[in-house]
Amino acid sequence: MRNLLFKIAFVGSSFHGWQQQDNAVTVQGELRKAWTILTGENPNIIGCSRTDAGVHANEYFFSVRTESTIPVKNFPAALSSAKLPGEISVISCEEVDIDFNARFDCLKKEYVYIFENTEIPSPFNYKRALNYKYKMDVALMNEGAKHFIGEHDFSAFCASGAEVLSKVRTIYDAAVERKGDSIIFRVCGNGFLYNMVRIMAGTLLYVNNGKINVDDIPDIILSKNRSWAGITAPPDGLYLNRVYFSGEDNED
Amino acid sequence: MRNLLFKIAFVGSSFHGWQQQDNAVTVQGELRKAWTILTGENPNIIGCSRTDAGVHANEYFFSVRTESTIPVKNFPAALSSAKLPGEISVISCEEVDIDFNARFDCLKKEYVYIFENTEIPSPFNYKRALNYKYKMDVALMNEGAKHFIGEHDFSAFCASGAEVLSKVRTIYDAAVERKGDSIIFRVCGNGFLYNMVRIMAGTLLYVNNGKINVDDIPDIILSKNRSWAGITAPPDGLYLNRVYFSGEDNED
Repeated sequence: MRNLLFKIAFVGSSFHGWQQQDNAVTVQGELRKAWTILTGENPNIIGCSRTDAGVHANEYFFSVRTESTIPVKNFPAALSSAKLPGEISVISCEEVDIDFNARFDCLKKEYVYIFENTEIPSPFNYKRALNYKYKMDVALMNEGAKHFIGEHDFSAFCASGAEVLSKVRTIYDAAVERKGDSIIFRVCGNGFLYNMVRIMAGTLLYVNNGKINVDDIPDIILSKNRSWAGITAPPDGLYLNRVYFSGEDNED
Repeated sequence: MRNLLFKIAFVGSSFHGWQQQDNAVTVQGELRKAWTILTGENPNIIGCSRTDAGVHANEYFFSVRTESTIPVKNFPAALSSAKLPGEISVISCEEVDIDFNARFDCLKKEYVYIFENTEIPSPFNYKRALNYKYKMDVALMNEGAKHFIGEHDFSAFCASGAEVLSKVRTIYDAAVERKGDSIIFRVCGNGFLYNMVRIMAGTLLYVNNGKINVDDIPDIILSKNRSWAGITAPPDGLYLNRVYFSGEDNED
Protein backbone atom coordinates (compact mmCIF):
# COMPACT_ATOMS: atom_id res chain seq x y z
CA MET A 1 0.00 0.00 0.00
CA ARG A 2 1.33 3.41 -1.02
CA ASN A 3 -0.06 6.83 -0.30
CA LEU A 4 0.28 9.08 -3.38
CA LEU A 5 -0.04 12.85 -3.60
CA PHE A 6 -1.09 14.24 -6.98
CA LYS A 7 -0.88 17.80 -8.24
CA ILE A 8 -3.54 18.70 -10.79
CA ALA A 9 -5.09 21.80 -12.40
CA PHE A 10 -8.61 22.16 -13.72
CA VAL A 11 -11.03 24.50 -15.46
CA GLY A 12 -13.79 24.88 -12.89
CA SER A 13 -16.49 25.99 -15.33
CA SER A 14 -16.58 22.47 -16.75
CA PHE A 15 -17.48 20.89 -13.40
CA HIS A 16 -20.03 21.09 -10.63
CA GLY A 17 -17.29 21.61 -8.10
CA TRP A 18 -14.80 19.21 -6.58
CA GLN A 19 -16.98 16.87 -4.58
CA GLN A 20 -18.46 13.76 -6.12
CA GLN A 21 -22.23 13.87 -6.69
CA ASP A 22 -24.59 11.31 -8.10
CA ASN A 23 -25.97 13.25 -11.06
CA ALA A 24 -23.35 15.88 -11.83
CA VAL A 25 -19.93 15.93 -13.42
CA THR A 26 -17.41 16.80 -10.69
CA VAL A 27 -13.62 16.79 -10.52
CA GLN A 28 -13.50 14.12 -7.81
CA GLY A 29 -16.05 12.03 -9.70
CA GLU A 30 -14.08 12.18 -12.95
CA LEU A 31 -10.85 11.35 -11.14
CA ARG A 32 -12.46 8.38 -9.45
CA LYS A 33 -13.82 7.06 -12.76
CA ALA A 34 -10.40 7.40 -14.37
CA TRP A 35 -8.75 5.77 -11.36
CA THR A 36 -11.07 2.79 -11.59
CA ILE A 37 -10.42 2.42 -15.33
CA LEU A 38 -6.68 2.52 -14.69
CA THR A 39 -6.36 0.36 -11.58
CA GLY A 40 -9.68 -1.38 -10.92
CA GLU A 41 -9.72 0.27 -7.49
CA ASN A 42 -12.47 2.50 -6.13
CA PRO A 43 -10.39 4.56 -3.73
CA ASN A 44 -11.02 7.37 -1.31
CA ILE A 45 -9.72 10.45 -3.16
CA ILE A 46 -8.93 13.12 -0.58
CA GLY A 47 -8.87 16.65 -2.00
CA CYS A 48 -7.05 19.60 -0.41
CA SER A 49 -10.14 21.79 -0.69
CA ARG A 50 -13.84 21.53 -1.44
CA THR A 51 -13.94 23.99 -4.31
CA ASP A 52 -17.38 25.12 -5.49
CA ALA A 53 -18.93 24.78 -8.90
CA GLY A 54 -17.21 27.10 -11.36
CA VAL A 55 -14.10 27.69 -9.26
CA HIS A 56 -10.83 26.99 -11.09
CA ALA A 57 -7.53 25.57 -9.89
CA ASN A 58 -4.09 26.42 -11.19
CA GLU A 59 -2.85 24.03 -8.53
CA TYR A 60 -4.82 21.49 -6.53
CA PHE A 61 -3.69 18.40 -4.62
CA PHE A 62 -5.32 15.14 -3.74
CA SER A 63 -4.01 12.09 -1.90
CA VAL A 64 -4.96 8.46 -2.52
CA ARG A 65 -3.95 5.21 -0.87
CA THR A 66 -3.47 2.56 -3.50
CA GLU A 67 -2.26 -0.99 -4.10
CA SER A 68 -1.37 -0.04 -7.68
CA THR A 69 2.26 -0.61 -8.63
CA ILE A 70 2.39 2.00 -11.40
CA PRO A 71 5.62 4.01 -10.88
CA VAL A 72 4.96 7.55 -9.64
CA LYS A 73 6.68 9.10 -12.67
CA ASN A 74 4.30 7.29 -15.02
CA PHE A 75 1.14 7.91 -13.03
CA PRO A 76 0.23 11.41 -14.30
CA ALA A 77 0.24 10.37 -17.99
CA ALA A 78 -1.47 7.06 -17.20
CA LEU A 79 -4.26 8.71 -15.26
CA SER A 80 -4.68 11.42 -17.93
CA SER A 81 -5.12 8.80 -20.61
CA ALA A 82 -7.79 6.92 -18.61
CA LYS A 83 -10.60 9.01 -20.13
CA LEU A 84 -9.93 11.98 -17.87
CA PRO A 85 -11.54 15.11 -19.39
CA GLY A 86 -9.11 17.59 -21.01
CA GLU A 87 -10.28 20.23 -18.54
CA ILE A 88 -8.33 18.38 -15.83
CA SER A 89 -4.53 18.09 -16.15
CA VAL A 90 -2.49 15.78 -13.95
CA ILE A 91 0.76 17.64 -13.35
CA SER A 92 2.75 15.45 -11.00
CA CYS A 93 2.70 12.63 -8.48
CA GLU A 94 4.85 11.75 -5.49
CA GLU A 95 4.76 9.11 -2.77
CA VAL A 96 4.06 10.49 0.70
CA ASP A 97 3.88 9.10 4.23
CA ILE A 98 1.02 6.64 4.65
CA ASP A 99 -0.64 8.98 7.16
CA PHE A 100 -0.43 12.06 4.96
CA ASN A 101 -3.83 13.58 4.17
CA ALA A 102 -4.19 16.25 1.46
CA ARG A 103 -6.96 17.94 3.41
CA PHE A 104 -5.64 17.94 6.95
CA ASP A 105 -1.95 18.39 6.19
CA CYS A 106 -2.60 21.52 4.14
CA LEU A 107 -0.94 24.44 5.94
CA LYS A 108 -1.95 27.37 3.76
CA LYS A 109 -3.53 28.20 0.46
CA GLU A 110 -3.35 31.06 -1.96
CA TYR A 111 -6.34 32.08 -4.02
CA VAL A 112 -6.48 34.65 -6.80
CA TYR A 113 -9.60 36.41 -8.01
CA ILE A 114 -9.33 37.87 -11.50
CA PHE A 115 -11.33 40.84 -12.75
CA GLU A 116 -11.23 41.55 -16.49
CA ASN A 117 -11.25 45.35 -16.61
CA THR A 118 -12.32 45.97 -20.22
CA GLU A 119 -15.36 47.55 -21.78
CA ILE A 120 -15.93 44.55 -24.06
CA PRO A 121 -15.56 41.15 -22.39
CA SER A 122 -13.27 38.78 -24.27
CA PRO A 123 -15.11 35.56 -25.11
CA PHE A 124 -11.92 33.73 -24.13
CA ASN A 125 -12.30 35.04 -20.57
CA TYR A 126 -15.94 34.00 -20.35
CA LYS A 127 -16.41 32.11 -17.05
CA ARG A 128 -12.65 32.56 -16.42
CA ALA A 129 -12.69 36.10 -15.04
CA LEU A 130 -15.30 38.59 -13.87
CA ASN A 131 -15.71 41.37 -16.40
CA TYR A 132 -15.97 44.81 -14.84
CA LYS A 133 -16.10 47.61 -17.35
CA TYR A 134 -15.83 50.64 -15.08
CA LYS A 135 -12.73 52.25 -13.66
CA MET A 136 -10.91 50.21 -11.03
CA ASP A 137 -8.82 51.99 -8.40
CA VAL A 138 -6.16 49.38 -7.79
CA ALA A 139 -4.39 51.36 -5.06
CA LEU A 140 -7.64 51.75 -3.11
CA MET A 141 -8.59 48.09 -3.54
CA ASN A 142 -5.10 47.09 -2.44
CA GLU A 143 -5.51 49.27 0.67
CA GLY A 144 -8.77 47.42 1.34
CA ALA A 145 -7.13 44.03 0.89
CA LYS A 146 -4.47 44.88 3.49
CA HIS A 147 -7.21 45.12 6.13
CA PHE A 148 -7.86 41.38 5.72
CA ILE A 149 -4.35 40.49 6.91
CA GLY A 150 -4.09 38.99 10.39
CA GLU A 151 -6.00 36.58 12.61
CA HIS A 152 -9.68 37.47 12.62
CA ASP A 153 -13.10 35.97 13.10
CA PHE A 154 -14.28 36.16 9.50
CA SER A 155 -17.98 35.49 10.19
CA ALA A 156 -18.85 38.59 8.17
CA PHE A 157 -17.10 36.96 5.20
CA CYS A 158 -18.79 33.57 5.40
CA ALA A 159 -21.92 32.44 3.58
CA SER A 160 -24.76 31.84 6.01
CA GLY A 161 -25.51 28.23 6.80
CA ALA A 162 -21.86 27.21 6.88
CA GLU A 163 -21.33 24.82 9.78
CA VAL A 164 -17.86 25.17 11.21
CA LEU A 165 -16.84 25.33 14.84
CA SER A 166 -14.59 28.34 14.53
CA LYS A 167 -14.68 31.14 11.98
CA VAL A 168 -11.28 32.41 13.03
CA ARG A 169 -8.76 32.28 10.21
CA THR A 170 -5.34 33.82 9.65
CA ILE A 171 -4.66 35.75 6.47
CA TYR A 172 -0.92 35.96 5.86
CA ASP A 173 -1.03 38.24 2.86
CA ALA A 174 -3.53 39.98 0.62
CA ALA A 175 -2.97 42.38 -2.25
CA VAL A 176 -4.49 43.78 -5.43
CA GLU A 177 -2.45 44.51 -8.54
CA ARG A 178 -3.02 45.26 -12.21
CA LYS A 179 -1.51 43.14 -14.99
CA GLY A 180 -2.59 44.52 -18.34
CA ASP A 181 -6.39 44.38 -18.45
CA SER A 182 -6.54 42.07 -15.44
CA ILE A 183 -6.99 43.23 -11.87
CA ILE A 184 -5.78 40.46 -9.61
CA PHE A 185 -6.77 40.05 -5.97
CA ARG A 186 -4.39 37.62 -4.27
CA VAL A 187 -4.95 36.27 -0.78
CA CYS A 188 -3.04 33.69 1.21
CA GLY A 189 -4.28 32.18 4.47
CA ASN A 190 -4.27 29.13 6.72
CA GLY A 191 -7.84 28.34 5.73
CA PHE A 192 -10.92 29.86 4.17
CA LEU A 193 -14.59 29.79 5.13
CA TYR A 194 -17.38 29.03 2.68
CA ASN A 195 -17.41 31.76 -0.04
CA MET A 196 -14.86 33.77 1.95
CA VAL A 197 -12.64 34.82 -0.98
CA ARG A 198 -15.66 35.59 -3.15
CA ILE A 199 -17.13 37.83 -0.42
CA MET A 200 -13.74 39.52 0.02
CA ALA A 201 -13.63 40.11 -3.76
CA GLY A 202 -17.18 41.48 -3.70
CA THR A 203 -16.29 43.73 -0.77
CA LEU A 204 -13.30 45.12 -2.68
CA LEU A 205 -15.64 45.82 -5.61
CA TYR A 206 -17.86 47.77 -3.22
CA VAL A 207 -14.79 49.66 -1.98
CA ASN A 208 -13.98 50.46 -5.60
CA ASN A 209 -17.43 51.77 -6.44
CA GLY A 210 -17.84 53.70 -3.20
CA LYS A 211 -20.51 51.54 -1.58
CA ILE A 212 -18.09 50.65 1.21
CA ASN A 213 -15.50 52.98 2.69
CA VAL A 214 -12.10 51.32 2.68
CA ASP A 215 -11.48 52.28 6.32
CA ASP A 216 -14.68 50.55 7.39
CA ILE A 217 -13.33 47.08 6.60
CA PRO A 218 -11.92 46.52 10.13
CA ASP A 219 -15.38 47.36 11.56
CA ILE A 220 -17.04 45.03 9.05
CA ILE A 221 -14.77 42.24 10.24
CA LEU A 222 -15.51 43.09 13.90
CA SER A 223 -19.26 43.13 13.21
CA LYS A 224 -19.20 39.41 12.32
CA ASN A 225 -22.29 40.32 10.32
CA ARG A 226 -22.46 38.97 6.75
CA SER A 227 -24.80 41.78 5.68
CA TRP A 228 -22.14 44.42 6.36
CA ALA A 229 -19.75 43.02 3.77
CA GLY A 230 -20.11 43.27 -0.02
CA ILE A 231 -21.70 40.88 -2.50
CA THR A 232 -20.50 37.36 -3.12
CA ALA A 233 -18.57 37.71 -6.38
CA PRO A 234 -19.36 34.92 -8.88
CA PRO A 235 -17.06 31.88 -9.05
CA ASP A 236 -15.89 32.79 -12.57
CA GLY A 237 -12.86 34.78 -11.45
CA LEU A 238 -11.74 32.53 -8.58
CA TYR A 239 -8.67 30.29 -8.81
CA LEU A 240 -7.04 28.14 -6.17
CA ASN A 241 -3.51 29.17 -7.04
CA ARG A 242 -1.07 27.58 -4.58
CA VAL A 243 -1.29 24.99 -1.84
CA TYR A 244 1.32 24.56 0.87
CA PHE A 245 1.94 21.42 2.91
CA SER A 246 4.17 20.71 5.87
CA GLY A 247 6.50 18.48 3.83
CA GLU A 248 9.77 19.98 2.67
CA ASP A 249 8.99 19.40 -0.99
CA ASN A 250 6.16 21.78 -1.00
CA GLU A 251 6.93 24.47 1.51
CA ASP A 252 8.11 27.89 0.45
CA MET B 1 -32.34 50.40 -44.79
CA ARG B 2 -28.78 50.42 -43.43
CA ASN B 3 -25.97 47.99 -44.03
CA LEU B 4 -24.04 47.34 -40.81
CA LEU B 5 -20.64 45.74 -40.36
CA PHE B 6 -19.99 44.07 -37.00
CA LYS B 7 -16.70 42.97 -35.51
CA ILE B 8 -16.97 40.00 -33.15
CA ALA B 9 -14.75 37.39 -31.49
CA PHE B 10 -15.70 33.88 -30.47
CA VAL B 11 -14.48 30.70 -28.81
CA GLY B 12 -14.82 28.15 -31.60
CA SER B 13 -14.89 25.08 -29.37
CA SER B 14 -18.35 26.10 -28.18
CA PHE B 15 -19.82 26.01 -31.70
CA HIS B 16 -20.26 23.72 -34.68
CA GLY B 17 -18.60 26.29 -36.88
CA TRP B 18 -19.88 29.55 -38.33
CA GLN B 19 -22.62 28.43 -40.68
CA GLN B 20 -26.18 28.00 -39.47
CA GLN B 21 -27.39 24.40 -39.26
CA ASP B 22 -30.71 22.99 -38.23
CA ASN B 23 -29.64 20.85 -35.29
CA ALA B 24 -26.38 22.33 -34.13
CA VAL B 25 -25.31 25.43 -32.23
CA THR B 26 -23.39 27.66 -34.65
CA VAL B 27 -22.11 31.23 -34.47
CA GLN B 28 -24.32 32.42 -37.32
CA GLY B 29 -27.31 30.63 -35.83
CA GLU B 30 -26.80 32.20 -32.40
CA LEU B 31 -26.34 35.65 -33.95
CA ARG B 32 -29.52 35.25 -35.97
CA LYS B 33 -31.50 34.21 -32.90
CA ALA B 34 -30.19 37.21 -30.96
CA TRP B 35 -30.91 39.50 -33.91
CA THR B 36 -34.52 38.33 -34.09
CA ILE B 37 -34.98 38.82 -30.34
CA LEU B 38 -33.57 42.34 -30.62
CA THR B 39 -35.22 43.58 -33.83
CA GLY B 40 -37.90 41.10 -34.90
CA GLU B 41 -36.03 40.73 -38.21
CA ASN B 42 -34.75 37.46 -39.66
CA PRO B 43 -31.88 38.85 -41.70
CA ASN B 44 -29.22 37.46 -43.99
CA ILE B 45 -26.08 37.51 -41.86
CA ILE B 46 -23.06 37.50 -44.17
CA GLY B 47 -19.86 36.29 -42.52
CA CYS B 48 -16.35 37.07 -43.74
CA SER B 49 -15.35 33.40 -43.60
CA ARG B 50 -16.91 29.98 -43.19
CA THR B 51 -14.89 28.87 -40.20
CA ASP B 52 -15.09 25.20 -39.27
CA ALA B 53 -16.25 23.63 -36.04
CA GLY B 54 -13.74 24.27 -33.28
CA VAL B 55 -11.93 27.14 -35.04
CA HIS B 56 -11.67 30.32 -32.99
CA ALA B 57 -11.79 33.98 -33.97
CA ASN B 58 -9.96 36.83 -32.30
CA GLU B 59 -11.54 39.00 -34.99
CA TYR B 60 -14.41 38.14 -37.31
CA PHE B 61 -16.74 40.36 -39.31
CA PHE B 62 -20.27 40.00 -40.55
CA SER B 63 -22.51 42.38 -42.46
CA VAL B 64 -26.30 42.69 -42.16
CA ARG B 65 -28.86 44.86 -43.91
CA THR B 66 -31.42 46.05 -41.42
CA GLU B 67 -34.40 48.36 -40.95
CA SER B 68 -33.53 48.64 -37.24
CA THR B 69 -32.97 52.19 -36.02
CA ILE B 70 -30.72 51.21 -33.08
CA PRO B 71 -27.72 53.61 -33.17
CA VAL B 72 -24.49 51.87 -34.23
CA LYS B 73 -22.74 52.75 -30.98
CA ASN B 74 -25.46 50.98 -28.98
CA PHE B 75 -25.74 47.94 -31.21
CA PRO B 76 -22.88 45.81 -29.79
CA ALA B 77 -24.19 45.94 -26.21
CA ALA B 78 -27.80 45.53 -27.37
CA LEU B 79 -27.00 42.45 -29.44
CA SER B 80 -24.85 40.97 -26.65
CA SER B 81 -27.70 41.29 -24.20
CA ALA B 82 -30.17 39.54 -26.54
CA LYS B 83 -29.29 36.10 -25.16
CA LEU B 84 -26.07 35.84 -27.13
CA PRO B 85 -23.80 33.19 -25.57
CA GLY B 86 -20.83 34.52 -23.59
CA GLU B 87 -18.50 32.66 -25.96
CA ILE B 88 -19.34 35.30 -28.60
CA SER B 89 -18.37 38.93 -27.96
CA VAL B 90 -19.66 41.78 -30.10
CA ILE B 91 -16.78 44.22 -30.28
CA SER B 92 -17.94 47.01 -32.57
CA CYS B 93 -20.38 48.08 -35.27
CA GLU B 94 -20.21 50.61 -38.11
CA GLU B 95 -22.45 51.58 -40.98
CA VAL B 96 -21.06 50.67 -44.41
CA ASP B 97 -22.10 51.22 -48.02
CA ILE B 98 -25.33 49.40 -48.87
CA ASP B 99 -23.46 47.19 -51.37
CA PHE B 100 -20.70 46.20 -48.96
CA ASN B 101 -20.49 42.45 -48.39
CA ALA B 102 -18.35 41.03 -45.56
CA ARG B 103 -17.50 37.97 -47.63
CA PHE B 104 -16.74 39.43 -51.04
CA ASP B 105 -15.14 42.69 -49.90
CA CYS B 106 -12.64 40.88 -47.71
CA LEU B 107 -9.17 41.54 -49.16
CA LYS B 108 -6.97 39.48 -46.91
CA LYS B 109 -7.03 37.51 -43.70
CA GLU B 110 -4.50 36.54 -41.09
CA TYR B 111 -4.74 33.26 -39.24
CA VAL B 112 -2.64 32.06 -36.34
CA TYR B 113 -2.14 28.46 -35.31
CA ILE B 114 -1.01 27.99 -31.71
CA PHE B 115 0.98 25.02 -30.47
CA GLU B 116 1.34 24.63 -26.71
CA ASN B 117 4.88 23.30 -26.35
CA THR B 118 4.78 21.87 -22.82
CA GLU B 119 5.11 18.39 -21.44
CA ILE B 120 1.90 18.73 -19.42
CA PRO B 121 -1.02 20.35 -21.27
CA SER B 122 -2.63 23.18 -19.34
CA PRO B 123 -6.35 22.49 -18.89
CA PHE B 124 -6.90 26.16 -19.69
CA ASN B 125 -5.49 25.60 -23.19
CA TYR B 126 -7.66 22.54 -23.80
CA LYS B 127 -9.30 22.98 -27.23
CA ARG B 128 -7.55 26.36 -27.49
CA ALA B 129 -4.12 25.21 -28.64
CA LEU B 130 -2.54 21.99 -29.87
CA ASN B 131 -0.30 20.50 -27.21
CA TYR B 132 2.97 19.17 -28.58
CA LYS B 133 5.31 17.94 -25.90
CA TYR B 134 8.48 17.30 -27.92
CA LYS B 135 11.15 19.79 -28.94
CA MET B 136 10.07 22.34 -31.52
CA ASP B 137 12.70 23.86 -33.83
CA VAL B 138 11.21 27.29 -34.36
CA ALA B 139 13.90 28.44 -36.79
CA LEU B 140 13.35 25.38 -38.97
CA MET B 141 9.57 25.71 -38.89
CA ASN B 142 9.90 29.39 -39.73
CA GLU B 143 12.09 28.47 -42.71
CA GLY B 144 9.34 26.09 -43.82
CA ALA B 145 6.66 28.76 -43.44
CA LYS B 146 8.60 31.12 -45.71
CA HIS B 147 8.15 28.64 -48.58
CA PHE B 148 4.38 29.29 -48.46
CA ILE B 149 4.82 32.97 -49.38
CA GLY B 150 3.83 33.95 -52.91
CA GLU B 151 1.14 33.12 -55.45
CA HIS B 152 0.74 29.35 -55.75
CA ASP B 153 -1.76 26.69 -56.64
CA PHE B 154 -2.33 25.30 -53.14
CA SER B 155 -4.13 22.09 -54.21
CA ALA B 156 -1.69 20.09 -52.06
CA PHE B 157 -2.92 22.10 -49.07
CA CYS B 158 -6.63 21.68 -49.66
CA ALA B 159 -8.90 19.02 -48.20
CA SER B 160 -10.19 16.70 -50.89
CA GLY B 161 -13.75 17.29 -51.98
CA ALA B 162 -13.50 21.06 -51.80
CA GLU B 163 -15.28 22.57 -54.79
CA VAL B 164 -13.65 25.78 -55.89
CA LEU B 165 -12.81 26.90 -59.41
CA SER B 166 -9.28 27.98 -58.68
CA LYS B 167 -6.94 26.79 -55.99
CA VAL B 168 -4.51 29.62 -56.62
CA ARG B 169 -4.03 31.85 -53.60
CA THR B 170 -1.51 34.47 -52.62
CA ILE B 171 0.25 34.26 -49.29
CA TYR B 172 1.64 37.65 -48.32
CA ASP B 173 3.46 36.58 -45.20
CA ALA B 174 4.05 33.50 -43.08
CA ALA B 175 6.22 33.01 -40.02
CA VAL B 176 6.72 30.91 -36.91
CA GLU B 177 7.79 32.37 -33.59
CA ARG B 178 7.96 31.37 -29.95
CA LYS B 179 6.20 33.31 -27.20
CA GLY B 180 6.84 31.62 -23.88
CA ASP B 181 5.45 28.10 -24.12
CA SER B 182 3.49 28.93 -27.27
CA ILE B 183 4.78 28.32 -30.78
CA ILE B 184 2.78 30.56 -33.10
CA PHE B 185 2.42 30.00 -36.84
CA ARG B 186 1.08 33.18 -38.44
CA VAL B 187 -0.04 33.34 -42.08
CA CYS B 188 -1.63 36.16 -44.06
CA GLY B 189 -3.15 35.72 -47.51
CA ASN B 190 -5.82 36.90 -49.93
CA GLY B 191 -7.84 33.76 -49.33
CA PHE B 192 -7.59 30.25 -47.96
CA LEU B 193 -8.80 26.89 -49.24
CA TYR B 194 -10.67 24.39 -47.13
CA ASN B 195 -8.39 23.25 -44.25
CA MET B 196 -5.46 25.08 -45.85
CA VAL B 197 -4.00 26.62 -42.69
CA ARG B 198 -4.49 23.38 -40.75
CA ILE B 199 -2.64 21.41 -43.45
CA MET B 200 0.12 24.04 -43.46
CA ALA B 201 0.37 23.70 -39.66
CA GLY B 202 0.46 19.90 -39.94
CA THR B 203 3.16 20.15 -42.63
CA LEU B 204 5.27 22.37 -40.38
CA LEU B 205 4.87 19.75 -37.64
CA TYR B 206 6.18 17.15 -40.08
CA VAL B 207 9.10 19.45 -40.90
CA ASN B 208 9.80 19.72 -37.18
CA ASN B 209 9.78 15.97 -36.57
CA GLY B 210 11.76 15.14 -39.71
CA LYS B 211 8.98 13.48 -41.71
CA ILE B 212 9.23 16.24 -44.33
CA ASN B 213 12.43 17.97 -45.39
CA VAL B 214 12.02 21.72 -45.17
CA ASP B 215 13.44 22.23 -48.67
CA ASP B 216 10.84 19.88 -50.15
CA ILE B 217 7.97 22.27 -49.48
CA PRO B 218 8.24 24.00 -52.90
CA ASP B 219 8.00 20.58 -54.58
CA ILE B 220 5.03 19.65 -52.37
CA ILE B 221 3.28 22.81 -53.54
CA LEU B 222 4.15 22.04 -57.20
CA SER B 223 2.88 18.46 -56.85
CA LYS B 224 -0.68 19.74 -56.19
CA ASN B 225 -1.03 16.40 -54.41
CA ARG B 226 -2.68 16.47 -50.99
CA SER B 227 -0.94 13.27 -49.95
CA TRP B 228 2.49 14.89 -50.22
CA ALA B 229 1.73 17.45 -47.51
CA GLY B 230 1.51 16.80 -43.76
CA ILE B 231 -1.48 15.95 -41.60
CA THR B 232 -4.44 18.25 -41.10
CA ALA B 233 -3.78 19.72 -37.66
CA PRO B 234 -6.89 19.76 -35.44
CA PRO B 235 -8.99 22.93 -35.27
CA ASP B 236 -8.07 23.48 -31.60
CA GLY B 237 -5.08 25.73 -32.33
CA LEU B 238 -6.55 27.74 -35.20
CA TYR B 239 -7.64 31.37 -34.84
CA LEU B 240 -8.86 33.80 -37.46
CA ASN B 241 -6.80 36.70 -36.18
CA ARG B 242 -7.24 39.70 -38.49
CA VAL B 243 -9.50 40.54 -41.42
CA TYR B 244 -8.77 43.32 -43.91
CA PHE B 245 -11.33 45.10 -46.09
CA SER B 246 -10.95 47.66 -48.84
CA GLY B 247 -12.39 50.46 -46.69
CA GLU B 248 -9.93 52.86 -45.09
CA ASP B 249 -11.12 52.08 -41.58
CA ASN B 250 -9.91 48.60 -41.74
CA GLU B 251 -6.90 48.51 -43.96
CA ASP B 252 -3.44 48.35 -42.57
